[in-house]
Amino acid sequence: MNDAFACVGLIGRWRSSEAAGSLIELAAFLQERGLRVLIEEGEHAGDAVQGLQRVEISQIAEQADLAIVLGGDGTMLGAARALACRQVPLVGINAGRLGFITDIGLDAWRPALTSILEGRYASEERTLLTTRVVRQGETVWSELALNDVVVSRSSRAGMIGLQVHVDNLYMYNQRADGLIIATPTGSTAYALSASGPILHPCVQGIVLVPVAPQSLSNRPIVLPDDVTITVRVIEGREPRVAGDMQVFNDLHTDDDIIVQRAPFRTRFLHPPDYSYFATLRGKLNWHEMPSLRHPGAQV
Amino acid sequence: MNDAFACVGLIGRWRSSEAAGSLIELAAFLQERGLRVLIEEGEHAGDAVQGLQRVEISQIAEQADLAIVLGGDGTMLGAARALACRQVPLVGINAGRLGFITDIGLDAWRPALTSILEGRYASEERTLLTTRVVRQGETVWSELALNDVVVSRSSRAGMIGLQVHVDNLYMYNQRADGLIIATPTGSTAYALSASGPILHPCVQGIVLVPVAPQSLSNRPIVLPDDVTITVRVIEGREPRVAGDMQVFNDLHTDDDIIVQRAPFRTRFLHPPDYSYFATLRGKLNWHEMPSLRHPGAQV
Amino acid sequence: MNDAFACVGLIGRWRSSEAAGSLIELAAFLQERGLRVLIEEGEHAGDAVQGLQRVEISQIAEQADLAIVLGGDGTMLGAARALACRQVPLVGINAGRLGFITDIGLDAWRPALTSILEGRYASEERTLLTTRVVRQGETVWSELALNDVVVSRSSRAGMIGLQVHVDNLYMYNQRADGLIIATPTGSTAYALSASGPILHPCVQGIVLVPVAPQSLSNRPIVLPDDVTITVRVIEGREPRVAGDMQVFNDLHTDDDIIVQRAPFRTRFLHPPDYSYFATLRGKLNWHEMPSLRHPGAQV
Amino acid sequence: MNDAFACVGLIGRWRSSEAAGSLIELAAFLQERGLRVLIEEGEHAGDAVQGLQRVEISQIAEQADLAIVLGGDGTMLGAARALACRQVPLVGINAGRLGFITDIGLDAWRPALTSILEGRYASEERTLLTTRVVRQGETVWSELALNDVVVSRSSRAGMIGLQVHVDNLYMYNQRADGLIIATPTGSTAYALSASGPILHPCVQGIVLVPVAPQSLSNRPIVLPDDVTITVRVIEGREPRVAGDMQVFNDLHTDDDIIVQRAPFRTRFLHPPDYSYFATLRGKLNWHEMPSLRHPGAQV
Repeated sequence: MNDAFACVGLIGRWRSSEAAGSLIELAAFLQERGLRVLIEEGEHAGDAVQGLQRVEISQIAEQADLAIVLGGDGTMLGAARALACRQVPLVGINAGRLGFITDIGLDAWRPALTSILEGRYASEERTLLTTRVVRQGETVWSELALNDVVVSRSSRAGMIGLQVHVDNLYMYNQRADGLIIATPTGSTAYALSASGPILHPCVQGIVLVPVAPQSLSNRPIVLPDDVTITVRVIEGREPRVAGDMQVFNDLHTDDDIIVQRAPFRTRFLHPPDYSYFATLRGKLNWHEMPSLRHPGAQV
Repeated sequence: MNDAFACVGLIGRWRSSEAAGSLIELAAFLQERGLRVLIEEGEHAGDAVQGLQRVEISQIAEQADLAIVLGGDGTMLGAARALACRQVPLVGINAGRLGFITDIGLDAWRPALTSILEGRYASEERTLLTTRVVRQGETVWSELALNDVVVSRSSRAGMIGLQVHVDNLYMYNQRADGLIIATPTGSTAYALSASGPILHPCVQGIVLVPVAPQSLSNRPIVLPDDVTITVRVIEGREPRVAGDMQVFNDLHTDDDIIVQRAPFRTRFLHPPDYSYFATLRGKLNWHEMPSLRHPGAQV
Repeated sequence: MNDAFACVGLIGRWRSSEAAGSLIELAAFLQERGLRVLIEEGEHAGDAVQGLQRVEISQIAEQADLAIVLGGDGTMLGAARALACRQVPLVGINAGRLGFITDIGLDAWRPALTSILEGRYASEERTLLTTRVVRQGETVWSELALNDVVVSRSSRAGMIGLQVHVDNLYMYNQRADGLIIATPTGSTAYALSASGPILHPCVQGIVLVPVAPQSLSNRPIVLPDDVTITVRVIEGREPRVAGDMQVFNDLHTDDDIIVQRAPFRTRFLHPPDYSYFATLRGKLNWHEMPSLRHPGAQV
Repeated sequence: MNDAFACVGLIGRWRSSEAAGSLIELAAFLQERGLRVLIEEGEHAGDAVQGLQRVEISQIAEQADLAIVLGGDGTMLGAARALACRQVPLVGINAGRLGFITDIGLDAWRPALTSILEGRYASEERTLLTTRVVRQGETVWSELALNDVVVSRSSRAGMIGLQVHVDNLYMYNQRADGLIIATPTGSTAYALSASGPILHPCVQGIVLVPVAPQSLSNRPIVLPDDVTITVRVIEGREPRVAGDMQVFNDLHTDDDIIVQRAPFRTRFLHPPDYSYFATLRGKLNWHEMPSLRHPGAQV
């Protein structure tokens, strides 16, 4: 066994009766292998397992050599944001349909974890974004995002107007429902629904995808990921900014939303046979082609 | 002069100093031709013109033979909703850049109105939609829309889940930022930003355009306009419904939004040389083709 | 039994050993019910069945009360074009994955045909298009299409330039890979791949969908189906026109391609429980939503 | 004057009477500054200027320190492909509407060239692609491309089927009109018409954009630019491959088209105030927003 992983954070919804059973099995599996297992403070269902340590998530970030997340892509996003600053690698186990970043099925976690704990895994680094909202010179909000930073209109008003600078160069004004600033990881999330391109995780890029832009010739644009993107709200009532569509903050007119690549990356560990393209094919039904077009044409 | 137009409603933002001057000129022009001119109650700047009658907008609907609207497409939408029930025909004069439905420029209204008042005009009928929100069997909101009915997510939460029936037949479930149900008139408004098709005003259709749909194979769908569309909110926090993106209403989970073609149409009058396609070309820059592609290729 | 269907054309690829078995079973089934069965001249594998009459397809059009087509959507398209002039209703049986217009599975044809032959069916009318290519005043090609008329660039040259008039009114110039003019039936074929909208079969419309248009603000446009659409090739080497992407014809610069709704419709018969929306959902995977977006967001 | 530029290739359509006048002025301007001027063999109109040297384009590549191209983006593409192997920097002067890569207007070339020749310029490197067609183990065609490599269907047949591997990993099968493999430079050319994203020239990526893909969930995908992309034609009649949509080659079924970043880059010189974003805004009309949406909504 690889002693690099001596202490493991086990993250999931212990409170959910569905998840708890699997979490208890996972905890037992890890303890049997002699690993120290940390769970989050306040996760009571963990009582069923002796020897689990309850700590703050920030303690997991500091002490864990590995985090195992049971849940969907949403749970994984939250864990990644919390643990990225200490670069704790993450493994994602999905209780439901496989996700883009939680790629181990509930029926397959034993061999997958055995392999990973023994040091046989595929490792993948993912970029994160830092966001600061600056109002009259002061930072009033800051957050980390693994998928995306989204500035949106209110559902109580029409579109918003945004002005975007890249490294202090004026890029464009945008009137739209919103603007999505996504990492390669986020390119298969909300940005994809808004007609953005897929960015392979190895592309050092950030993609800006407008949602329902007024200017019909507007298009997603991919920028190198070492730039500073400044979005200023110039028009619109009650706009908001979101990190990973999970943490939200109200914006004022003339607020600057400043987005940069975070100084650290998060790392996902996958079973050795992991394939990014296979995940894409599976999630996006690329294997299925409705016979929209006429086989007869080739005859 | 065509005595069909004896009484004219003159609608615009009298309170705006920019608009007031033009409105006063318009009023004088109409009075000189012996027409009775009605303006909305509360529009004080109208004091400059003798003989204007101030009435409720509902009175304009009842008494006017014609409404002249000075403003942008937004002002026109509001006027059309208010006057459609009495089928008062509308003429749109745009103080700024020409709109889709306000197609007479501020510098061209004299000859245009002269022609229209003398009975030389192109007339165009436009469909409207009625919307009712039904909560536990009761109608809690109803509105008219000329452009569109839009159900949207809150900016404080992720996507919403909607279930759509057409004439009580199940069509689909949709997870998205929202769903736009648009008339041909609305097909060049918000729906176009969300990648919907353009519907010629003579097409008897209603188009459903999802905004940022989770299912990537989702597409706008055009239905015949004599159907009943029922949208049920099945998931999501704080969704809202909007008529023409101007009137908003909060929705609850399990609310039914029931959309139908209104029993009456609105009628736009244009100068005789009006061309719908010319408006499209002008508004959508179809005349301009960035030399994206290589002239050299044909050499 | 409904004596309306006394004579049935049985259309399929008798030469294909896979199809022949099923065709023979179908023929026997029809004969057992006392129906006269016609097959196409030259389909030798039909020898296995006594009493089949071999005739030209034009004879099937004249004599058959019903056509049963075994094959994919492509085979159905060809049959519909051949039989539409005499309005012979069609039933489509699909040997592979169900199509948009061949909606009866090979394992389900017995009860489906029994029901249809007994007069219990859903009937659906579909519009067709007529196309004429006019060169220097003369018609040099004409065809019928059920799905679409497509004008395309050659693969040996860059884009083509097209000029489009609708009822002799100038609509636009288009530089693109091509232009698809589709019926509601064709709206789920090639036009859908090119980002066109879906048109419900009851919509009286024709949709024009550019393929890779140079002007980025170009959009699909739906026109009423009683117009005359004239497409003139104004630029480009070796362009071609296709009917249903099955019959092709070379074009010259300045050729006019004139497209109109055909004076007759084709009619599809479906089992009584047929649902257009269910077909859409099945073909387009609308039931599947990749968890692109974050369930965590709603928690 | 910067003696780094002692010898200049002057490229353009000397045979065109429109271009010749400007080329002659350009040649005189360059000679006045003591520069040696090379033009292409066979460009007769150059006779008007004494002292021009006529050489093969390959000689220009070897001897010139700078190439000045008068023409559109298409002419610039051809020059870039011819000169890239020797990394001759290029300046693009556009006789018509400014292009994406020919950004100096005919009325502005004097100050722009003066500045560039004096060493004050913005320099921009652009990636190129090499393409090889391998048939039964043998390379039967190879080309350089600055914009894109495109595999397309014939206009005489329906879609083609392609299988794509990336670094020998299977990515997907694609049925479509074609597949565009574009550099950042090419991302604003054909790929943009086919709904691809814009890639900033500094992004180290290659984008794959399907044209009218049958699978509706297919999306453009951006890959890092150090990969090897292998496209195999698995279905379709008479497909072709194109480099920059200017050089074409017939393909056979089972041909492999192998695309990689070229070992060298091309370099564009711009006047010092050049802005990539300003070019985008100008070419894509981002400054213009049709008032599609309702100003009234914000009132």
